[in-house]
Amino acid sequence: MRKDGRAKHELRHIEIVPHFTKHAEGSVLITVGETKVICTASIENKVPPFLRGQKKGWLTAEYSMLPRATEQRTIREATKGKVTGRTMEIQRLIGRALRAVIDLEKLGERTIWIDCDVIQADGGTRAAAITGAYTAMVLALTKEKSYVEWPITDYLAAVSVGLHPDGGPICDLDYKEDSDVDVDMNVVQTGNGRYVEIQGSGEEAVFSRTEMNDLLDLAENGIRELIHYQKAHLGEANGWIERSYG
Amino acid sequence: MRKDGRAKHELRHIEIVPHFTKHAEGSVLITVGETKVICTASIENKVPPFLRGQKKGWLTAEYSMLPRATEQRTIREATKGKVTGRTMEIQRLIGRALRAVIDLEKLGERTIWIDCDVIQADGGTRAAAITGAYTAMVLALTKEKSYVEWPITDYLAAVSVGLHPDGGPICDLDYKEDSDVDVDMNVVQTGNGRYVEIQGSGEEAVFSRTEMNDLLDLAENGIRELIHYQKAHLGEANGWIERSYG
Amino acid sequence: MRKDGRAKHELRHIEIVPHFTKHAEGSVLITVGETKVICTASIENKVPPFLRGQKKGWLTAEYSMLPRATEQRTIREATKGKVTGRTMEIQRLIGRALRAVIDLEKLGERTIWIDCDVIQADGGTRAAAITGAYTAMVLALTKEKSYVEWPITDYLAAVSVGLHPDGGPICDLDYKEDSDVDVDMNVVQTGNGRYVEIQGSGEEAVFSRTEMNDLLDLAENGIRELIHYQKAHLGEANGWIERSYG
Amino acid sequence: MRKDGRAKHELRHIEIVPHFTKHAEGSVLITVGETKVICTASIENKVPPFLRGQKKGWLTAEYSMLPRATEQRTIREATKGKVTGRTMEIQRLIGRALRAVIDLEKLGERTIWIDCDVIQADGGTRAAAITGAYTAMVLALTKEKSYVEWPITDYLAAVSVGLHPDGGPICDLDYKEDSDVDVDMNVVQTGNGRYVEIQGSGEEAVFSRTEMNDLLDLAENGIRELIHYQKAHLGEANGWIERSYG
Amino acid sequence: MRKDGRAKHELRHIEIVPHFTKHAEGSVLITVGETKVICTASIENKVPPFLRGQKKGWLTAEYSMLPRATEQRTIREATKGKVTGRTMEIQRLIGRALRAVIDLEKLGERTIWIDCDVIQADGGTRAAAITGAYTAMVLALTKEKSYVEWPITDYLAAVSVGLHPDGGPICDLDYKEDSDVDVDMNVVQTGNGRYVEIQGSGEEAVFSRTEMNDLLDLAENGIRELIHYQKAHLGEANGWIERSYG
Amino acid sequence: MRKDGRAKHELRHIEIVPHFTKHAEGSVLITVGETKVICTASIENKVPPFLRGQKKGWLTAEYSMLPRATEQRTIREATKGKVTGRTMEIQRLIGRALRAVIDLEKLGERTIWIDCDVIQADGGTRAAAITGAYTAMVLALTKEKSYVEWPITDYLAAVSVGLHPDGGPICDLDYKEDSDVDVDMNVVQTGNGRYVEIQGSGEEAVFSRTEMNDLLDLAENGIRELIHYQKAHLGEANGWIERSYG
Repeated sequence: MRKDGRAKHELRHIEIVPHFTKHAEGSVLITVGETKVICTASIENKVPPFLRGQKKGWLTAEYSMLPRATEQRTIREATKGKVTGRTMEIQRLIGRALRAVIDLEKLGERTIWIDCDVIQADGGTRAAAITGAYTAMVLALTKEKSYVEWPITDYLAAVSVGLHPDGGPICDLDYKEDSDVDVDMNVVQTGNGRYVEIQGSGEEAVFSRTEMNDLLDLAENGIRELIHYQKAHLGEANGWIERSYG
Repeated sequence: MRKDGRAKHELRHIEIVPHFTKHAEGSVLITVGETKVICTASIENKVPPFLRGQKKGWLTAEYSMLPRATEQRTIREATKGKVTGRTMEIQRLIGRALRAVIDLEKLGERTIWIDCDVIQADGGTRAAAITGAYTAMVLALTKEKSYVEWPITDYLAAVSVGLHPDGGPICDLDYKEDSDVDVDMNVVQTGNGRYVEIQGSGEEAVFSRTEMNDLLDLAENGIRELIHYQKAHLGEANGWIERSYG
Repeated sequence: MRKDGRAKHELRHIEIVPHFTKHAEGSVLITVGETKVICTASIENKVPPFLRGQKKGWLTAEYSMLPRATEQRTIREATKGKVTGRTMEIQRLIGRALRAVIDLEKLGERTIWIDCDVIQADGGTRAAAITGAYTAMVLALTKEKSYVEWPITDYLAAVSVGLHPDGGPICDLDYKEDSDVDVDMNVVQTGNGRYVEIQGSGEEAVFSRTEMNDLLDLAENGIRELIHYQKAHLGEANGWIERSYG
Repeated sequence: MRKDGRAKHELRHIEIVPHFTKHAEGSVLITVGETKVICTASIENKVPPFLRGQKKGWLTAEYSMLPRATEQRTIREATKGKVTGRTMEIQRLIGRALRAVIDLEKLGERTIWIDCDVIQADGGTRAAAITGAYTAMVLALTKEKSYVEWPITDYLAAVSVGLHPDGGPICDLDYKEDSDVDVDMNVVQTGNGRYVEIQGSGEEAVFSRTEMNDLLDLAENGIRELIHYQKAHLGEANGWIERSYG
Repeated sequence: MRKDGRAKHELRHIEIVPHFTKHAEGSVLITVGETKVICTASIENKVPPFLRGQKKGWLTAEYSMLPRATEQRTIREATKGKVTGRTMEIQRLIGRALRAVIDLEKLGERTIWIDCDVIQADGGTRAAAITGAYTAMVLALTKEKSYVEWPITDYLAAVSVGLHPDGGPICDLDYKEDSDVDVDMNVVQTGNGRYVEIQGSGEEAVFSRTEMNDLLDLAENGIRELIHYQKAHLGEANGWIERSYG
Repeated sequence: MRKDGRAKHELRHIEIVPHFTKHAEGSVLITVGETKVICTASIENKVPPFLRGQKKGWLTAEYSMLPRATEQRTIREATKGKVTGRTMEIQRLIGRALRAVIDLEKLGERTIWIDCDVIQADGGTRAAAITGAYTAMVLALTKEKSYVEWPITDYLAAVSVGLHPDGGPICDLDYKEDSDVDVDMNVVQTGNGRYVEIQGSGEEAVFSRTEMNDLLDLAENGIRELIHYQKAHLGEANGWIERSYG
């Protein structure tokens, strides 16, 4: 049994507030348990120099935490004058994940800027950021119609799973669980059940193939539920997405 | 008459949500019209090296904007690797303003870190940040009791006022008004009606002493109202503050 | 009575050496008491990208101190790899102040670069920098005739005033007085007596409206004297400036 | 069939030159096909501040490429003044991987610095770096005897595998293959066959669970062969490692 | 007598491995005693902006050390975020030296990038870098034929000499000798015996004109030998170089 | 004949204003022709960490140019966020030069900070900086008596010489001459006629041993004259210096 009474496979309470801020083309506040992330999608009508004239778009992501999103205040990266390795790793992951379900040629010569800002952290911030950013991106495209042809090819969500020394595989770790597990894995998967990204690592620990399979089973289940929840906020875009992998 | 129907002296709609995030000792979400700022106050039980052993505390402030708080996406300062001049000016102002109403000897050897993060901007972000940060600071001290003797000596709020080319002095400018005025002034004032900071500047314009006096009258009126609103959230701290300037 | 025997309203001894260095279009060495600042104005025949094609010019300012301008040696900002908040605040102030008395359309598509380098500091460096930079700018324009139509619309000078705990309001603070006052205020004013910038702040202190009025009276008096002194160095430009606000 | 005639499961030619440079406690030049990496392990008799007094050691890794290791010259990170996201991601991976097979308490209060410098790149540099760095680390510990008790708990090697659009899963990708595959995966595994890290990502592509299983099979086979090769260079350390998981 | 038995005028053992890495147009591994430097020459078909349209080429050099090239590990400049003064001085020296024997007009609108990466250091790294870089440059030009007319006008090599407190002037200092000498001098000379660069400095010491002449004699002798060795690797380029100063 | 009518061996007009600024322990304004440099020497009663407890002092130098010291305005290094290679090279040279004539053990555990700030540049700034900095250092030590035993062991001055394509070797180059010469050499020499530093380089040119000897003759003559001039400002220190090499 977990501290908060959840079963091993159970997700924390999820909430997505669409259109959370007024300036961004698409934005949500996603809450997963006590983790809260503002995700915005901004659409700009040009592409970076290396893509000009190729009739393709681009998508890039940035991630940050407010200094007091965490239990101990962390120093701002702007104050330090550089982005940490952890932040870079996460923003590269978010970008890669979203690019897997968008057809950049159908997007046309546009750039989508994804910004994920964690205002309260309690574990699973990168997974929540991907799930929220996907939603913000679809909302932005639905509202602005700024594409050549509908470019989103599938649903997308992410979850963290881990091997707890006391109780084996568990799904959707909070901060305390995340510090306790031997192995943690982030899984990004589509509505079709295909993988976009699997990152499993055993910091000062190792894991067997059987354990990995258990973790992937838990993740798949969690992601199905997350996507179910996303659909409730996507309106008419649901039809376009489903048609595209029909 | 102003675009949104307000009279010259009228403030926009204000809302303060106390205890907005869970980790900070004190935190609020302050909303002024369409401007929204998360303000947190973190208390650390040590002081910077230059103050060690002096039985005094310290307070310092940081300010930032989410990239899509604004109509056009702005580049993150962490990505640029440096803090802009505008941000530095604002965070120095917030720190100076709050230090004027806290007795650092009564605080004892502690540091208060103020973080103001604008999640949506529509003019007046520095004034909203000061008003919100003051509230967060009082909430933090009330809850944590981390002081030698109650250190807050007065209420504190800030407002922007300006000279509009069409209609003269107006109070609490939104973004559009802020771009239109010839002269803008930020006023920080205490519950006692004394000034902490006056910054008036005419970018490519100048102003007379009479105009300045009109602006100060408008500001005083707005600040009185803001402090009235603050008091509703400060609970038992009201008694301690009032006693300290009684 | 002040340490150096001055009356409350009295300025320190002022000296302006025009054409102090040979390469800049305009340059002065301004001495105010023991404070010495080299101010140069460089005129470049192009504007920054955001202004191209708009038939307007631009003016920007930078400020720095030699490491041993101060009593204790300060680390060079170039060595630290970044400009401090104090420097940014001052250079933004100098730029804003000068732009208030220059008609950028009459300047035409040119940039004026103002550089203020403090070689000896004894309080009031930002005020001396503004007064000196204005003079250097007028000398540069007079000599180079690089404008569409004479663009300077008024005289400009700055002074610092403050509330001393022992003796009330005083004008033109030296370094020692600057550390002692509760409230200090920088005032930038034109020949016409109109304000360009007022920055009053009480670091760990507050001030009343009456006190502010006393400070503004002192400042006005000092600025009138400074402008009187400036005029002696501006030659034929005096006629053009006076005509422009006649 | 692959360009260079290899079968799908076949590794490129491998060579490890032990004691490649003279100053480092341990060093190798590892060659995998045309990829060449100098890996050194430096042992320092102290730990970073956050670990002092805890009777544990630390291991950290850095990774870099010579500018002309690549087909097009790349700009030095020192010249740019910052480390790229890709480099950070790789050096964090190397550190995490090695820490999984070293018992930091048995190491005692020492830091192992791993440096991986790619002098020629042709795909698979991060995998070669991990395999080489592990070897350098064991050589350093064997030679210096700088530990409390023998700390290495298992063998360790890494390989990249990918899904090629023409021919399905392949092992040990060269640069050309790496650009062609839809999905690539880096696998770090121990002598015992347990996983330390799995990073699979489909840049603009997705993959099924079956495909993932095929990739893991290929990787396991390659890693077994790499470890077989490593053993030939580890001398008496082989006995100690085997005993520790015996 | 020197530690390693060399006579005062004697060079350490030299070895040049041409074509050491595969991507660079020209590359060598130069070994001088225990000092080893990888030198590459990359040819790019464009020039920096300040030279565009002038029908001249450019040559620029960079220098770095692997962290564990030295007895104590040094921090990477990329990690520090800046290039040290020593590195800057050396890379400027290498560039200046090579530009003295290349006719940039005959090179045409091309840039030669020289990269010198020290993989093992034992004194004399800057001299070895110049001697190796010259060789790599000639190999690159010979192989690529990327010039308008053969541009190399002379041979070029460098050596360090010094005044040892025990035994007077010595040639080609190793690390230990370099720390012991009072005065050290780097000399860069051409095949024709003319100087390109002389940098003699007495850190906390001084030297007479006679001592300087002794040092220059030793250096000349060493450089003749180095160039003799270089010629063995330059093949048909020897004829072209000799003709150009014939 | 040179542009300004000087003979080949002739220095430009020199002027040294001692005690130029009031805060530094020692300071001069040195003028050489149209080149003007403010040199200050600051004495601090501690040494950098690497020297603590060794009963030795330290001396370090920094060099900078005001943006408009030059004909074209140059960007501030503080604004760029880094010190250029040229500046680093010069400040390392100044430090090395001065350390050659100061006995750091006699100085005791103190640091001398030298700051050279060029306010007007017309060639020869690094030579003028060394000559001026030496004077400022001696003035500081004479005034403050902050040493264990008088530490200055000799006089010190620097000059630039060069090979002009039209007229052969010339002494003390102005900016125009400096751009025209094929070879330029900076020579730092003591009162005793011994060398501290010789840096001769032929940017895109070479020079023979005979030419070098001519340059050294010219330099020696110039330096003798510079030292003669210095002595006039050193007062009682002259006796102490002369005794130390008596």
